[in-house]
Parts: sequence; C-alpha cells; structure tokens
Amino acid sequence: MTASMSHGSMHEGLDLLQVPDLAAQLRVDSIRAAGSAGSGHPTSSLSAADLLATLMSRHLRYDWQHPDAPGNDHLIFSKGHASPLLYSVYKAAGVVSDQELMEGYRRFDQRLEGHPTPVLPWVDVATGSLGQGLPDAVGIALAGKHLENSPYRVWALTGDSELAEGSMWEAFATAAHYQLTNLITIVDVNRLGQRGPTALGWDLETYAARVEAFGMRAVLIDGHDVTEIDEAMALAVTEQDRPLVILARTVKGRGVPEVEDELNWHGKPLEEDVARSAIAQLGGQRDIVVTGPRPPAVDAPPHTRGELSLPTFEPGEEVATRKAYGAGLAALGAADPRVVALDGEVSNSTGVATFIDEHPDRFFEMFIAEQQMVAAATGLSTRGYIAFASSFAAFLTRAADFIRMAPVSRADLRLVGSHAGVEIGADGPSQMGLEDLAMIAATQGSTVLYPSDATSTVALVEQMADTSGVSYLRTTRGAYPVLYGSEERFPVGGSKTLRSSDGDAVTLIGAGVTLHQALAAADELAEEGIRARVIDAYSVKPIDGEGIRAAVAATGGRVVVAEDHHAEGGLGAAVLAALTAEPVSDLHVKHLAVDGVPGSGDTAELLAWAGIDAEHIAAAARTVLEG
Amino acid sequence: MTASMSHGSMHEGLDLLQVPDLAAQLRVDSIRAAGSAGSGHPTSSLSAADLLATLMSRHLRYDWQHPDAPGNDHLIFSKGHASPLLYSVYKAAGVVSDQELMEGYRRFDQRLEGHPTPVLPWVDVATGSLGQGLPDAVGIALAGKHLENSPYRVWALTGDSELAEGSMWEAFATAAHYQLTNLITIVDVNRLGQRGPTALGWDLETYAARVEAFGMRAVLIDGHDVTEIDEAMALAVTEQDRPLVILARTVKGRGVPEVEDELNWHGKPLEEDVARSAIAQLGGQRDIVVTGPRPPAVDAPPHTRGELSLPTFEPGEEVATRKAYGAGLAALGAADPRVVALDGEVSNSTGVATFIDEHPDRFFEMFIAEQQMVAAATGLSTRGYIAFASSFAAFLTRAADFIRMAPVSRADLRLVGSHAGVEIGADGPSQMGLEDLAMIAATQGSTVLYPSDATSTVALVEQMADTSGVSYLRTTRGAYPVLYGSEERFPVGGSKTLRSSDGDAVTLIGAGVTLHQALAAADELAEEGIRARVIDAYSVKPIDGEGIRAAVAATGGRVVVAEDHHAEGGLGAAVLAALTAEPVSDLHVKHLAVDGVPGSGDTAELLAWAGIDAEHIAAAARTVLEG
Repeated sequence: MTASMSHGSMHEGLDLLQVPDLAAQLRVDSIRAAGSAGSGHPTSSLSAADLLATLMSRHLRYDWQHPDAPGNDHLIFSKGHASPLLYSVYKAAGVVSDQELMEGYRRFDQRLEGHPTPVLPWVDVATGSLGQGLPDAVGIALAGKHLENSPYRVWALTGDSELAEGSMWEAFATAAHYQLTNLITIVDVNRLGQRGPTALGWDLETYAARVEAFGMRAVLIDGHDVTEIDEAMALAVTEQDRPLVILARTVKGRGVPEVEDELNWHGKPLEEDVARSAIAQLGGQRDIVVTGPRPPAVDAPPHTRGELSLPTFEPGEEVATRKAYGAGLAALGAADPRVVALDGEVSNSTGVATFIDEHPDRFFEMFIAEQQMVAAATGLSTRGYIAFASSFAAFLTRAADFIRMAPVSRADLRLVGSHAGVEIGADGPSQMGLEDLAMIAATQGSTVLYPSDATSTVALVEQMADTSGVSYLRTTRGAYPVLYGSEERFPVGGSKTLRSSDGDAVTLIGAGVTLHQALAAADELAEEGIRARVIDAYSVKPIDGEGIRAAVAATGGRVVVAEDHHAEGGLGAAVLAALTAEPVSDLHVKHLAVDGVPGSGDTAELLAWAGIDAEHIAAAARTVLEG
Repeated sequence: MTASMSHGSMHEGLDLLQVPDLAAQLRVDSIRAAGSAGSGHPTSSLSAADLLATLMSRHLRYDWQHPDAPGNDHLIFSKGHASPLLYSVYKAAGVVSDQELMEGYRRFDQRLEGHPTPVLPWVDVATGSLGQGLPDAVGIALAGKHLENSPYRVWALTGDSELAEGSMWEAFATAAHYQLTNLITIVDVNRLGQRGPTALGWDLETYAARVEAFGMRAVLIDGHDVTEIDEAMALAVTEQDRPLVILARTVKGRGVPEVEDELNWHGKPLEEDVARSAIAQLGGQRDIVVTGPRPPAVDAPPHTRGELSLPTFEPGEEVATRKAYGAGLAALGAADPRVVALDGEVSNSTGVATFIDEHPDRFFEMFIAEQQMVAAATGLSTRGYIAFASSFAAFLTRAADFIRMAPVSRADLRLVGSHAGVEIGADGPSQMGLEDLAMIAATQGSTVLYPSDATSTVALVEQMADTSGVSYLRTTRGAYPVLYGSEERFPVGGSKTLRSSDGDAVTLIGAGVTLHQALAAADELAEEGIRARVIDAYSVKPIDGEGIRAAVAATGGRVVVAEDHHAEGGLGAAVLAALTAEPVSDLHVKHLAVDGVPGSGDTAELLAWAGIDAEHIAAAARTVLEG
C-alpha cells in the first residue's frame, strides 16, 4: 500500500499498481458485508473484485456526487446477486459509508437491498433476475448512441451462468445490429452456478465463438490479472467496430483459499473464522476512497413537449383501436421528441407503422425478441425517453419477467398489446391474447387500459405518456364504430356510461369488443322492455370503483360483465374487487369470459362460442333479472 | 410427372426425380387452401415446399395411419404460420382430404386451424408463437435419446425470423449439451419477416457461425434444390457427433413470380388471378398420395405405477414446503418410472435436489433457461412422461408464453415455484414471486395449489401426477409447523377448516405462509373473545367455492383473506369469484395482499410491512366485525 492510499484519502484515478490494493478492499468489504447480514453472495463478489477495482478506478467515467450527470458512464450489474461487491464499490467511491455497508446491507427499510435497485441513485435498473441487466443495458446504449449522441459508455457486468438465458443472446444480437460500440460487456466466468458447474465451465473459447458469431468483439483475459483487465477495458475507447465483450476467466471465492473454486459456497456468507482469517490475509479493513476518471461535460438533451394535436374520428366511423394507437402515437411523437417506439417485428399489425412513417429515427425494430424489446424500453425510460413497446398481446407474455421487474426498476414502461382475445378470428389461439390483462394487472403499480373506440384510444395514449410505472394499452384487431366525439375526456380510473335511465334494471359492463356487444345486448333487451345501463370500463386498473358501485346499486345489484379474456385476473376480477371493496348487501353478478381452448373461425362465431357476444350478454341479463 | 405418380396412387417413398412434382402439389395446395379461407400464409409455405416434399417422401419415417406408433419420427412445425404447407403435406400423406383442406382450413369448429395444434393426431405440440417449436422439439428429443432409447428422430422446421427469439438459442445450447443428434433443425431462410427483411437476410454464413458456436453441425444448402436438400437430410443418419442444423436459403413466395421475394406479402392469400395463373404454371391441382419411409418397429416403453410410499411428517415439526416437494417427488419417482424432473439451476433451493439424489438419470438440468425448461417439460409430456419443472416462482414468469401455449398444445405441464412472496426476506423483490398465481390462474384449464405444510404438499404432488393440463404448486422458503397428520386427504378443489365453532364471527382464509398467520390471528382474536373460523385454501384453482361460501355464510358474511401475492389474480380474487358466483345478500370482505415494491428484511418485518401478518389479519377481522 502506498502512502497516497492511506485510509480516507481521495484520488482521481489510480495507478495500475495500486489497483490490487483496492481490489483487496472490495474483497474484504464484500466478506464483511455478507457476514454482517448473515446472507448474501460473497463468493460471487470475490470473483469479480479485480474487474470492478480496475473498472471503477481507471475506466468508469463517473461523477459519484452527481449520478444524474448526463455524461456519466453507466454501470449495469447484471449479476445482481454480487451486490456485496457493488456496495463495496460504492464505499470505495465515497458515497456509502462503512457503517451503512455493515449495518444496512440486506436489512429492513435500508437501501442496500439483497439485489441492487434504483432506490440507490447510482443504479439505473434493478437486477437479480439473471439475464436482464445486459438487455436493459442495450436500451441505455441505444439511447446514448442513437438518440442522445452522448459520449457515455455502458458497462455491464454479467455472470457466466446467466449466459444460458436466451435474453442475453437477444441482447448481443441487438447490440450488434445497432452497432452499440458504447456497450462493454464484462463476463465474470467463474464456472460455478448456484448448484454446480455451468454447462461450459471455463471454456472461454466457446463463449468467444458464440459472442463473435453474434457480432461482438471478444477479448479473453485472466480476470485476476489487473494488467490484462486494464488493457481489455482500454479497448472500449479504441474499438469502434463492434461492441466489446470481455470474457474474464475468474475463480469463484478468489482470495479465500478455503472456498476458492469450491462447490456449495454459492449465496452463503463465510464461516466466521474463515472470514476472519481471510480478511487478515487480504490485509485487513481499509477505507480507501478512490475517484475514477471524470465524465465528459455534456448537456442533457432538451426535454419539452410542444403542442399536441391528436387525430380525431367521426362517431360511427369504423376504426380499429390498433390503428388509432398508431395514429395517436405518431401525433404524440410530433409534439414530444422524447417519444420513441419499439416493436417486435409486427408494426404493420400493431399500428406502429404510422409512427415509423413519421418518425423513423425514433423507432427501434426489435425483431421477434420481445424480452429485449421490453428491456430496451426499460433502459430507454431510465434516460428520460417516453418509450412505447408493442406486439400482439399474446406475445407480450414472452417478456413477463421483464415486465415484473420494471416496477422494481422504478421504470416507466409503456406497453401496447394488439390482437386481444378470440376477436381476432381465424388465426387461432396461439395468436389470441387471453391472459395479458391478468399478467399486467398483477404487476406492481400498473395501469391497464382497454379502449373500445378510436377516440378513447388516442386520449389514453396521450395519458400513458404521463403515466408512471407500467402502463398497458390493449387494442383490438377489428374495426368498430367510433363511440365518442373528440370533446370527451377519458381519465385513467374513470368509466363512461353509454346507456342510462332511471328505470335501468341491470348494468352491463364491457371493454373493447365486449362493449360493442353489450350495446347490442342493451338494444336487444330494450326491445323486450328491459332497460340496461351500459358501462365502458376502459380503465381496467385502476377501475372506476365508485362509478361501478353506483351503477350496480342503481340497478338493484344486478350486473353482467363480459370480457374477451380468461375469467381470471381481467376485467371481471377488477369489477368484483370494486364491488366488494365496501360491504355488500345485494349483488347478483354474471361474469362472462373465455373458457376452453378456442379454435379458428370468424369473429362472430368465436364471440358466440366463448359466450361473450350480445346474445349471451342479453341472456345473462335475463338470468340475473330472474334470480 | 411419371405414370407412377398419377392422381390418387400410393407410393412408399419417392425417387428424388419425382420430388419436385410433389413440391409443386404442396405449393398448389398451399395457395388453394389459403385462397379458400381468405387468410393465411401462402408465401411462407411456398419457401419451404421443396424442403417438406423431400422430407416427407424420403426421410421422415412415419406411419401416417398410426400417429402414435412409438417408432415414428416427429415433425415439429416451429414456423406454425406456414400451416397451409403442413396441411398440404397431410393431404399428400393421404390423411386429410382435398375437400377438408379446401373447406375446413381456418374455419370454425374445424381441425385445420390457422396454426397447427394437437387436435390433429399428427401434431405433437401447438406452434404459432414463434420460437417455441424448436425448444419443444428438444424435449421430445431428450425423451427419445435419454429416456426411451428410441430410434425416432425429431425434425423441426423453423423460420429465420424466429431465430431472433432467445428461446431458440436456449434450445440450441441445450441440444448440444445433451448431444441430441436425434434432433434435426431445418431453417427456412427466406429472409423476409412479417413487416420486412430480417436482421441477417440471406447471410447464411453468420447463421452457420452462430449455430456451430452453439455446438451444432451446420449445413448450408439451396432450399429449392432437392438434391442438396436430400443430401443434407441424409446426414441425419450418418451424423452422430453434433445435432444437425440445415440452413436452407429459400425464396419467400417461391413458385409465384408476382410475389417471389417481395415485401408486403406476409400472411395474405394471393389475389385470385395471381393464384389462378400460379396454379396453372405449377401444373394445376394434383392428388398425389405418397408414403415416406416406414418407421422402425419399436415397443412403447412400459408405463405403470408401482406402490407409492409418500414421506410422512410429524405435526408440529417445522418443514419447508419446498423441501417436502422434493421428498414427495422423489417418492413419486420411486413408484413411477415416468416421473422426471427439470430445474433451472436452483435445485438446491427448490427442493429437487432430493429427487436428483435418488433418480439422477431422470433429472435434466436446464441451467438458467426457464423457457427451454418449460418447453422441454411440454415435449416430455407428449411422450407420456410426468415431468415436473421447477424454479423460483418469480423466475417461472420467464416462461409465461410457453405456459400460455401449453393448453393449446393439450400438454400436461407440472410446474413448481418456490420462494413465493415477501416471505423470502433479505434477497429482495427480484426474487419474490408476487405475480405467479395470477399468471398460472389465467392459464386455460389450469390447477393452482398452494400448500401450507409438508403433509399437504406431498399429497398434492401425488395428485399433480394425475392432473391434466397445466398444474402449479407454489412453495414457501421458510420452515413452518406441519399442520396435518398423514391420514388427511387434500382433494384438488377442496379446502381444510382448521378452526371452527358454532359461534364463529368471522372467516379467515389463507394459504401458504398466510395460513400460519391466520392461525396466529385467530389465537389473538380468541383472547379477545372473538371466534374466527380459519380456512386453508390450499386449492386456489379450482377453489372450494361451496366450502368457502358456507363458511362465510356461517360467519355473517364476514371474511378476511390474506395472501403473500399482489392483490390481483391470486387467492383473494379466487375467493371473491367464489363468493359472488351465487347471488349475495350480505358480504363484508377485507382482502390483504402485497402492495408496493418490497425491500429486504426478515420474514416477520416484511409480512408486517405488507400488512399480511397475524396482527394485520386480526385488525382486519375487527374492522369487518365493526363494519
């Protein structure tokens, strides 16, 4: 240890000779943090300590005091379970105290969580579900290279185990396609997963062949040789051709002889005596504070919204909501340069083609890689972009784990799923979104919107731009009559009453295609002298509980709700939750939803088969009236 | 056309010279079928017609009259949208009539659906969600090579667009790891996706580099040259080293000059005059019937269950349900050789380690590739295996689209998700399954089980073995007291009443960890003189509607339901649906669930934070009693 590295002193960058001492500190602190918490992943931290010591002290251009500085590099910790190492880096950067590390790690109501999340200002996206950090990083790199034209670089540390996730290969393919030379992937190849060896072990050549075939430049190094690490990282500046992947051969548990390269030490703190002796051998506790290279000074891109001129539609005109979505998004894009779109190679179906025509430079084709699409939208949102990602509703389920993680990342994720339900007809069940409402509604803090006409669609698209968290717009394949004039408002959490009179005997609730069926059912019932109130529940979550409870109360507790979705977790479930949110004295519900595996057919045949067409809604209304 | 290929005649295999004529028939029929339906994907069929003509007539060993013959090869149509081609193959095999092709395709209540499903006896798994057929095929190949020791081969036809899906690379990696030389992948590289060119176009060399790096043997051919096709397919017999991938350069729309290699012809039938002239140029309608090579005669593996001896547990003993799952599965595996297990590299956490110890030859490590894991379980189930696939509940969401498709495949898919909810403690939200119940409950025909103790866990594992469709067992990280003696029965669709008296004032419903909290709440309430009925809702779907309605009616309509899951789509939603399935006159519900993004902490801290611990349940009970 040199004099200039005494405890508590501050440096701007380290001489390479000093890096091992910093690495030793990161190791000691990783061991201490996990030991203090009684859980965590010290061995997965030890393998990457030399990588992170070299990175933070000599290559990561980062102003730790200003994590939002637009020129800052981004460090994405894809192997999030190695959080002891990341938090030890924060201590070494002088932004987390030793006390916080020792008393806060993995504790309740503390920010040093078991896996990193953006409750920490230096974390862009939450990790811990392996295979997500790198795809998220692709989104941040896309923003830097293709939107912000910023000099920042994105450094992603991944494990080797997580290279088994297909999402990682979607990320590599996308990084190559978009020539993201601002993305540097560092793979900590410590050969051991949670329960045993990885499929490829230390076969770095095979990893290299794979990433090279996917368009990367691979560099193979000894991940404990700081000279090799340093030279590889220096290529981030000179390599302008292909995104760089540093494949680092490492030893899990490196620095603690008792656990080095041993099985059964994943996710466990060291035994106390082993930890004590290891810390002593590593030179004991240090409190070196190091500042790496400064980021370049760059201006943040201007973020303002101009005047918005949404498309309007004539009531009665037949327009598919998926087409209205595209038109609305294109208009939004004209008003706000932050609006970007992504699609999973179905833009001519989802409606996004309209946006692409008008704003080709703000559209990213993600091909058929929905996980990467959602991850890219997540990454883009961390840079302040208003990213809308679309595919068939059915295929958004491909990205369910990424959607689940978006609220943990505190990301504003805007999703649009077209071709909802059996309504699509002949293509059959593989293409029918019948589970999408349940998936998104169960996502923490989400907003679920399901418009029935073009006017409400564009109004909701506008609101999604300002909605935080995960928001979802469900659109329909077929064209249906416009129901509303452009003066109508559609607040999130509201509903519309389309038919109403004092003598209403039953409430009919629909959204999307079933709203049109409910209107037809009301006509049919009217001919029999039965008056039905009809509610457009365009906001499925939050649902208009007050409005729906009032309507149902006004109709003697009698209500029919119909949805083009399975019975679980969709519109009906939201209505039932609203109706029972207060004590109930009189309630008779019929819930019509899709049960059974559909086949092909035309829309009318399939709505009838599913029992969600006007005829079945009217029949259900008669049943509740009899009951 | 040779005399021996006159209409309606039958052949066992074709001379290579005759294959182009068969290919022309497949093209003509693909055009006719899509034209008759007014929708479908003829151009995607035309590119692969020569591939399929060669395969079906000279390489696919298949007894069309006996689709269940154990020696039959398997044809997995991963690019399921090219169904006109597949159904034309069925016509050429003599198992679908021309009339059915022309009048049944894509029609309501007909078996020739827009995308193939196993309502057709020659289809193993449903396709149409791109990127699933090949991973499913890996499961079938695993069964053939590692369980059945059968000579059958699995031929998977994939598109090039779907190679963008990460799941395809999980499949290649898995095929290489398990040396599935019985799997032949044929990639129809027609360079055009739905909305435009693919990322790699006709760059077959890059595809070859990628699949070779993933451990395959790549063969590059002209996909319209039947000699090249034939030679490549013949390698399936001689290649014993690596799984074969045939990369076939093809032209989308091949055979119809007006649309060949043209954009904007995806998923559209040809215009009538174009179709008429193309059919004429292709030689008009034919009705050749061809039988390819016969499959080898092999015996089906014996499928019987021996005597089952489930582990038993002492009431009061503390056992984690995840550990009980492993013990139960190991016992089931001892009784039934069809039982196999798969895990996503967390077997020491999910409990499956116990099964691996006892039945290592029936365990497949899927590493961290949950999509492939679920697909492999799907494929294995088509071969009669009782496959259980496990990971953390949170990470099963990675495979949501595969789970969605399982009912379309009519597959019996058994999933087990451990580490449910905030109960897990310090690891934090990325590892907490809080959406899993919603995901599986919304799956068509699914069964959702959530036991609270070890005894009920093993009883439910036994029943899962005989449950059709998608079934799901949710397990808990921590160890909790065994509640039941081994004599108790836990029928799917039932519930258990653990506390009950005539004077019960409120019903408390829980499952998993919240059942233990509900019992503690009942104790707390009892001290205040409030009697609470406590119900173990171990069967979330189907839920015990009758039992729950009776309990709630007996307690004046007062009910508290608590779950370690988000409020949407889980236990509470199931209870509400049950309570409102019949007219309601008096109901006061409090639904306690997890809202907000959790952090780290210990179990007690997090259950309290989420408001689902005994104290909050008791408080909610007091509220409904006041209300």
